[in-house]
Amino acid sequence: MTHRIHNFNAGPATLPLSVLEEVQAELLDFKGCGMSIMEMSHRSPEYMEVHTEVQTLTSELLGLGDDYKVLFLGGGASTQFYMIPQNLLSGGRKGDYIVTGTWAKKAAKEAKLFGEVHIAHDAANADGKFTYIPTQDQLHLSPDAAYLHYTTNNTIAGTQFHYYPKAPAGVPVICDMSSDIFWKKFDPRPFGLIYAGAQKNLGPAGVTMVIIRKDMLDRCADGIPTMISYKTHADNDSLFNTAPVFPIYVVGKVLKWIKALGGLGAIEKRNREKAGLIYGAIDANPDFFRSPIQRESRSVMNIVWRLPSEDLEKTFIAEAKKSGLGGLKGHRSVGGCRASTYNAMPIEGVKALVGFMEAFAKKNG
Amino acid sequence: MTHRIHNFNAGPATLPLSVLEEVQAELLDFKGCGMSIMEMSHRSPEYMEVHTEVQTLTSELLGLGDDYKVLFLGGGASTQFYMIPQNLLSGGRKGDYIVTGTWAKKAAKEAKLFGEVHIAHDAANADGKFTYIPTQDQLHLSPDAAYLHYTTNNTIAGTQFHYYPKAPAGVPVICDMSSDIFWKKFDPRPFGLIYAGAQKNLGPAGVTMVIIRKDMLDRCADGIPTMISYKTHADNDSLFNTAPVFPIYVVGKVLKWIKALGGLGAIEKRNREKAGLIYGAIDANPDFFRSPIQRESRSVMNIVWRLPSEDLEKTFIAEAKKSGLGGLKGHRSVGGCRASTYNAMPIEGVKALVGFMEAFAKKNG
Repeated sequence: MTHRIHNFNAGPATLPLSVLEEVQAELLDFKGCGMSIMEMSHRSPEYMEVHTEVQTLTSELLGLGDDYKVLFLGGGASTQFYMIPQNLLSGGRKGDYIVTGTWAKKAAKEAKLFGEVHIAHDAANADGKFTYIPTQDQLHLSPDAAYLHYTTNNTIAGTQFHYYPKAPAGVPVICDMSSDIFWKKFDPRPFGLIYAGAQKNLGPAGVTMVIIRKDMLDRCADGIPTMISYKTHADNDSLFNTAPVFPIYVVGKVLKWIKALGGLGAIEKRNREKAGLIYGAIDANPDFFRSPIQRESRSVMNIVWRLPSEDLEKTFIAEAKKSGLGGLKGHRSVGGCRASTYNAMPIEGVKALVGFMEAFAKKNG
Repeated sequence: MTHRIHNFNAGPATLPLSVLEEVQAELLDFKGCGMSIMEMSHRSPEYMEVHTEVQTLTSELLGLGDDYKVLFLGGGASTQFYMIPQNLLSGGRKGDYIVTGTWAKKAAKEAKLFGEVHIAHDAANADGKFTYIPTQDQLHLSPDAAYLHYTTNNTIAGTQFHYYPKAPAGVPVICDMSSDIFWKKFDPRPFGLIYAGAQKNLGPAGVTMVIIRKDMLDRCADGIPTMISYKTHADNDSLFNTAPVFPIYVVGKVLKWIKALGGLGAIEKRNREKAGLIYGAIDANPDFFRSPIQRESRSVMNIVWRLPSEDLEKTFIAEAKKSGLGGLKGHRSVGGCRASTYNAMPIEGVKALVGFMEAFAKKNG
């Protein structure tokens, strides 16, 4: 029996066991081709079938219309931070940014190199920490912006938008969904561009999914490097150069796994149940566990909490690890504990964590 | 017994079977961590050991001094085509480019967006085809260039530099070694920057190795996007953002495999023997096989040849495939046949190909 722990890593993160088993089974010989998927031309019919299937499954699960293209790019979401403004702010246009965490802040920083950046809301407190999501009323939006950019879920802070901010008429919404894409169904129509690094809720590190509405392509700047232009990748179906074949292939298996589970409706139910159990354990022990963030802004994907002291937090994380519960250390910039409960985390893992939390609180409280 | 063919793909390309078997064995549980390498934080001690080992092995095999940094970047070699000039030509500096193939031409095209491009030699013939490598005397080099850029091996044309062009005093050499890095030992000292997409001679698609001499970092432009600056990646040891963990991990296994084979001396001997056998078969049947390129410029990595007709070429490729010899179709832009004999191609594969070539020539000649 293979040794597997319950892995609460924030990213790269746990993958469905059945997906890994399939990858393992076909690693030396992909579908009778006599070679690994890693050794196959990115233009071969066998790989093209994989490539197209990931696009089709994405469209199907998210309910995208024909007006969207699904792209696979390298360089991580951090590469999107400059690709977006270089394509869309060139010529001095303005981008609206809602800053609710470290990544949103980084995205806004890169945009300043290409155009005007208007911060529609900055949720950082005096210490630079992020503990809430602003309401629609708190947003100062520009009617003349080239786009409104925000991050749906903040992996480090443990906060998440539980509504979809409405942009002024004609302003497309651009979203970093790296840590919660595919966690539930949503209406894609307001979104001009959605991007997500794969290594949280989608697959292994090394590919970023970019979903772009075709009308956005007409707004992309000319005279920028070929690899930076979304037009290049849309026109060449993400095969202008060699795509990161293996990560894309694993993403395809994860999407098939979601579909087999019942699609995004079933996944959402499962995710809410998992998060509910952990927040329940935190709230049931208010003298011992403390959530540092606003209740309405709590993330369903990354659940953060504190213990009465940093020493107890260290002990908690170390003892949890010994009990087969890994990845519970909070991000180095904020400390504390964090459980990432992405799609692939099974309910059994969450139940084991909750049991451990209760026992630990009882023993040390 | 797993079905495996002899895979002559130009990239992504064949990997050592023992490497794939190791990856397969530890896919569900990396070194007793209870998770796959794909599910592991890029900042965990377990992954950091892998990351550092790939850097150490690279330095050791290539004989790099402490004045070089080994980086792992996403986006493919095509991303380097603009990163290099954006870092090094900003402010109107001049880059010298030797154009010996499709990829060198693309690199020069991107550089024009950032500074002056001087073509030190253009080897394209009237049809735009590349059939030779210029000699040192044929190069028109600029003493005031920010760098001299060339491509050591031309995957599509099937040509390869068999000498290392000397740049004017003080001009660093920048090289795209995507299709022949690690094929033999060379003196790294003239090189300011070496880059290589992994998917030919190094590992799976999704990571580009960049070897940069530290003094080049001082020449990098300020005020460019964070992810484009080599300084960002050098300062953060390629962990500014999530690195493409899985491709890097496989590259590490390939480098260990090279070391176990006896290092670059042994690999060079093996590569020359393989190429010698195939070129031998071509030259032994001059009425049937024809090399379209200059003899002195023949690549040891990508061996191209023509048959008396395109119909015979089609038959050759189809029958070879039936005999377990895959990936022999030339690049769509040049046609003909091509056998890529990267490091991982075993001599047995080459012998099987040569046997097939001889029999096919006899039957159809």
